[in-house]
Amino acid sequence: MPDKSLDVVAVGNAIVDILTQSDDAFLSRHALKKGAMTLMEAAQAEALYAAMGPGVEVSGGSAANTIAGIASLGGRTAFIGKVRDDQLGTVYQHDLRALGVEFPTKAATQGPGTGRCYILVTPDAQRTMNTYLGAAVELGPSDIDPALVARAKVLYLEGYLWDRPDAKDALRKAADAAHKAGTKVAFSLSDAFCVHRWRDEFRKLIQSRVDILFANETEITALYEVNSFDDAVPLVRKDVEVAALTRSELGAVIVHGDKTEKIAAERVAKVVDTTGAGDLYAAGFLSGYVQGKDLANCGRMGAVAAAEIISHFGARPETPLKDLMKKKLGATA
Amino acid sequence: MPDKSLDVVAVGNAIVDILTQSDDAFLSRHALKKGAMTLMEAAQAEALYAAMGPGVEVSGGSAANTIAGIASLGGRTAFIGKVRDDQLGTVYQHDLRALGVEFPTKAATQGPGTGRCYILVTPDAQRTMNTYLGAAVELGPSDIDPALVARAKVLYLEGYLWDRPDAKDALRKAADAAHKAGTKVAFSLSDAFCVHRWRDEFRKLIQSRVDILFANETEITALYEVNSFDDAVPLVRKDVEVAALTRSELGAVIVHGDKTEKIAAERVAKVVDTTGAGDLYAAGFLSGYVQGKDLANCGRMGAVAAAEIISHFGARPETPLKDLMKKKLGATA
Repeated sequence: MPDKSLDVVAVGNAIVDILTQSDDAFLSRHALKKGAMTLMEAAQAEALYAAMGPGVEVSGGSAANTIAGIASLGGRTAFIGKVRDDQLGTVYQHDLRALGVEFPTKAATQGPGTGRCYILVTPDAQRTMNTYLGAAVELGPSDIDPALVARAKVLYLEGYLWDRPDAKDALRKAADAAHKAGTKVAFSLSDAFCVHRWRDEFRKLIQSRVDILFANETEITALYEVNSFDDAVPLVRKDVEVAALTRSELGAVIVHGDKTEKIAAERVAKVVDTTGAGDLYAAGFLSGYVQGKDLANCGRMGAVAAAEIISHFGARPETPLKDLMKKKLGATA
Repeated sequence: MPDKSLDVVAVGNAIVDILTQSDDAFLSRHALKKGAMTLMEAAQAEALYAAMGPGVEVSGGSAANTIAGIASLGGRTAFIGKVRDDQLGTVYQHDLRALGVEFPTKAATQGPGTGRCYILVTPDAQRTMNTYLGAAVELGPSDIDPALVARAKVLYLEGYLWDRPDAKDALRKAADAAHKAGTKVAFSLSDAFCVHRWRDEFRKLIQSRVDILFANETEITALYEVNSFDDAVPLVRKDVEVAALTRSELGAVIVHGDKTEKIAAERVAKVVDTTGAGDLYAAGFLSGYVQGKDLANCGRMGAVAAAEIISHFGARPETPLKDLMKKKLGATA
């Protein structure tokens, strides 16, 4: 890894999560896609909020959750994403800065409020996400500072950003700045429906600009339009340097050149809410990666971080992950 | 119990809790009173927020937590308390109304924002609360509708309100309306420091207007200025019809006329955050009371509700308490 003053800089949607307990009957009554992330307009989101149960608010956003996890593991991080200068935006900025994350993006002073994700958690601990992007849509290329990107060992991008043309340009600008500066580009496929919307562009991006790919089983099979996980592995092997492919309780498969590492999932006493499982897996993995750990240890760190996040409501760690990692993995972490 | 369309109506400070993990070193560095509720001005609260870790936001307020618990147990409830028409106020209104709570108090359209309580949870699961009352201070007698109070079997008041002269007048107005309508008046001492501030007025209020008193050990000994819990029991017995006195892991003592019931605490696998333990105890107890249960069963319901709330972050139930109560207590609940 080149000598850099930051471990990871991420670009993502800045979103406050509003989580509530729900059930399958509510999901079908409101025609919500279980397990998916669905974009909503303001009026639609308000109607859903009015119908849903009491909530817990926690800062979220996929890439930001990953950054919060890396910071909680002691990493040096920065985040680029757009909030509005309102109460939820203030909370959002606080929650990243309190972890020592550099968060230079200026809050919007007009336009829609800070973005929100209404998350319905069912008794099986599955989360169904309904996002009103709000101010997050204002993120554009002018928010990307190539000098900030150049300071990091890894640039981390979330697939969700692809839903907005301006954000797409911002991502390309960030990826180009990364490659000029010897910064690795990591990308998360985010969501199977997001992959369906942007399959061709995602494939081009991955082949031309991505070094490290994060995906779960449904996302990677959607990307390559194959029927089984095993069929996707040789395809992703050709496209990227490293792929970390997660399979929930089946653990994860790390693909690197002609090597393949299988890592068991970490046991969890009670799975409460799977929101952020993939984000925190990426946090653990990348923390190991920037420290130069071997890929099996990176995978184990991902598993431990993911296990913490699914044991409680919300996608931000409730325990300093650095301490947890030492307890679980000892000297290897 | 008279035939009424509501079980419990409560008056309290409408406050959004912002909870974070902290440690004793942080508390002493910021000269915070561990375990207490301390009032803060806006600038002081902002400085504390800037120094504290990332948070989780959950609607709170002592009496409102009790009302949320009663609603979660299937009770018919109403809440009187003041928010501002801002994002946190919208969240606050949502969280009560989503439980079926009547919440008729109009949000303030000017003045300070919705009140916040910055809660530092230490590794011993103790919570240290620092409150910026914000819009909650605007609550006054004009917010009390005697007809609403008259519809309830029980009026529940929190001691915290005593810190504001206008709120004090509102409480007296509500208590008078209750007595005219055959509505029992329940009162929570809230906090030992609050008792120290208002001891004489609390004693007068309790002797003249309170039927059911909730207090923990430090609060009841502070009220009567006695050195031991056992010395407080005969004194409170003379002052109120029913007193429910909680002693954390030692369980609770219910005093009623010449009877005394001792109820064991409910076992909890892991105590995460004691915020709201007393509030939810009152919720369980009053739910039993309005259903005409005997006081031992009221006490058991209080213990079960308190055990749920201390097993996670935040003072609002994460599980429908009605289902939990059936599982734990069966036909008696």
